[in-house]
Amino acid sequence: MIDLCILGTIGGMPVINKFMSSTIINVNGRKILIDCGEGTQLAMRKIGWGFKSLDMICITHSHGDHTVGLPGLLATIGNSGRTEKLTIIGPNGISEIVKGLNVINPYLPYELEIIENTNNTLRFMTTNTKMSLCNESERSNLHLSCMELDHSAKCLGYSFYFKRLPKFSVEKATQNKVPKILWNKLQNKESLEYEEKKYFPSMVLSDERKGIKLSYITDTRPIKDIKEFIKYSDLFICEGTYGSNEDMEKAIKNKHMTFSEAALLAKEGVCHELILTHFSPALENPESFSNNATNIFKNSLVASDGLIKTLNYSD
Amino acid sequence: MIDLCILGTIGGMPVINKFMSSTIINVNGRKILIDCGEGTQLAMRKIGWGFKSLDMICITHSHGDHTVGLPGLLATIGNSGRTEKLTIIGPNGISEIVKGLNVINPYLPYELEIIENTNNTLRFMTTNTKMSLCNESERSNLHLSCMELDHSAKCLGYSFYFKRLPKFSVEKATQNKVPKILWNKLQNKESLEYEEKKYFPSMVLSDERKGIKLSYITDTRPIKDIKEFIKYSDLFICEGTYGSNEDMEKAIKNKHMTFSEAALLAKEGVCHELILTHFSPALENPESFSNNATNIFKNSLVASDGLIKTLNYSD
Repeated sequence: MIDLCILGTIGGMPVINKFMSSTIINVNGRKILIDCGEGTQLAMRKIGWGFKSLDMICITHSHGDHTVGLPGLLATIGNSGRTEKLTIIGPNGISEIVKGLNVINPYLPYELEIIENTNNTLRFMTTNTKMSLCNESERSNLHLSCMELDHSAKCLGYSFYFKRLPKFSVEKATQNKVPKILWNKLQNKESLEYEEKKYFPSMVLSDERKGIKLSYITDTRPIKDIKEFIKYSDLFICEGTYGSNEDMEKAIKNKHMTFSEAALLAKEGVCHELILTHFSPALENPESFSNNATNIFKNSLVASDGLIKTLNYSD
Repeated sequence: MIDLCILGTIGGMPVINKFMSSTIINVNGRKILIDCGEGTQLAMRKIGWGFKSLDMICITHSHGDHTVGLPGLLATIGNSGRTEKLTIIGPNGISEIVKGLNVINPYLPYELEIIENTNNTLRFMTTNTKMSLCNESERSNLHLSCMELDHSAKCLGYSFYFKRLPKFSVEKATQNKVPKILWNKLQNKESLEYEEKKYFPSMVLSDERKGIKLSYITDTRPIKDIKEFIKYSDLFICEGTYGSNEDMEKAIKNKHMTFSEAALLAKEGVCHELILTHFSPALENPESFSNNATNIFKNSLVASDGLIKTLNYSD
């Protein structure tokens, strides 16, 4: 089970009584934050999911409405007692941005690991005490992919695949004559040697089960590669800077999307559900344009600040 | 007449429904901001004094609760249409802090002039269209002095003296036989030569009248030099991180002040009025400790976010 909260929904510049576009994901109690505009730490405080367990921050791009909350948040995480490494992921150049903004925190009590745009899928192992990068031979349960978007700054879309780990199968373990003493260890490790014989986790585990795919796309024009990138997402969170189709010219000029463009991506990407966010500050009542999305992709939702969503595994 | 607004009153870290400790001063429509924590631009938006006319930002020190709102604010000022230079003043090292935080604004449409701690009084000329640094020979109407405070980072206190410019005196002009054709020019310039004779502004202007002194002290222990620095202030705005005298140990450890320490400074500095601000986030109801200040210095006020104060010239 994955919980997420749309912490804020505003793009561009801060407005009163709303938070900047940002989302937090809760996986076994460990947290991933996507984007961090001014005030994001307050939106986090409001929902009370804590700061110490934030293991990863994914930044879409360097623009202030997605980044300037970082120095304050990193300081607050320091005050929360965290000493474990925190991973920040972003497009090429994000190291310089984080280094610059972080000038006010010369002595953070934890290490920052910064990963710039990578074409490789990043693998993480998440337990209820930590989330950390791992290599292919380890038993990862979160795969993170990035794609380059089309905005006025280098910008990344993110796709998270939360793997569902195979169940332990007594039937398979018995069939493969695995000594009982190894069962528990094999369930958590790659391989073991016992009495001169090799044993593998696959000898005690069921086949892999369907995981959860969550895609996150902001800020960008609806370029065609997005369709493949978000394919079959259980949840597709997408920018909808403009509600009205009449704002198409602005959307093209400012490299953003309208609600209907986002909905078309959700439809073409065969997603299960679409949540629209990152609204222009001029869009006073985004909900009033929801038809522009639902007419194209029925399972569309116009987010409001603090919206909580639970994603369940399908079996 | 000088208007000011205590934009926020919280020190340390952001809390919900309150703004970070920051003050804006309005002089003839031109604005000076003191400190800029996360969300200060929102507090500014709330009072509606505008962004374009902000000519000077005084930063007390580099700590995040006083600085991390800068990059967002500087971007918003850029979007307001400002093209005139903006002056930022702060302690030694502030250039690096501003340069770091400003990494997200590579193309601001105006110049940033950064002045680090100076022992000299800075002189400004303020009209209703601009506020700019000037030299001794020019007719300055704002003098700004700084003093080094005692905090866990290099920190500056500020003292503003808003000069009241002399009135034009027909009597003096006539007495000094100043040709009428020079009256208007002499009122606005230092000196003139006309028909081989030199004329000075003092030949047409009354004696200088009492101005307004405003002192701003945060974050610091109550070191003895403050008393002289704030002497005879019409308004002394001072940190009162802790309301209760029982928090003296924390105040000493964290290099802050209690309400009663701030009130004692106001008394010893023979100030006219004290406004307390920069409250610890743990201080839920600062007003309930106001007696700790008023018992020592009667004309003390515990600030709340958005408090507006008008300072009038005495004659």
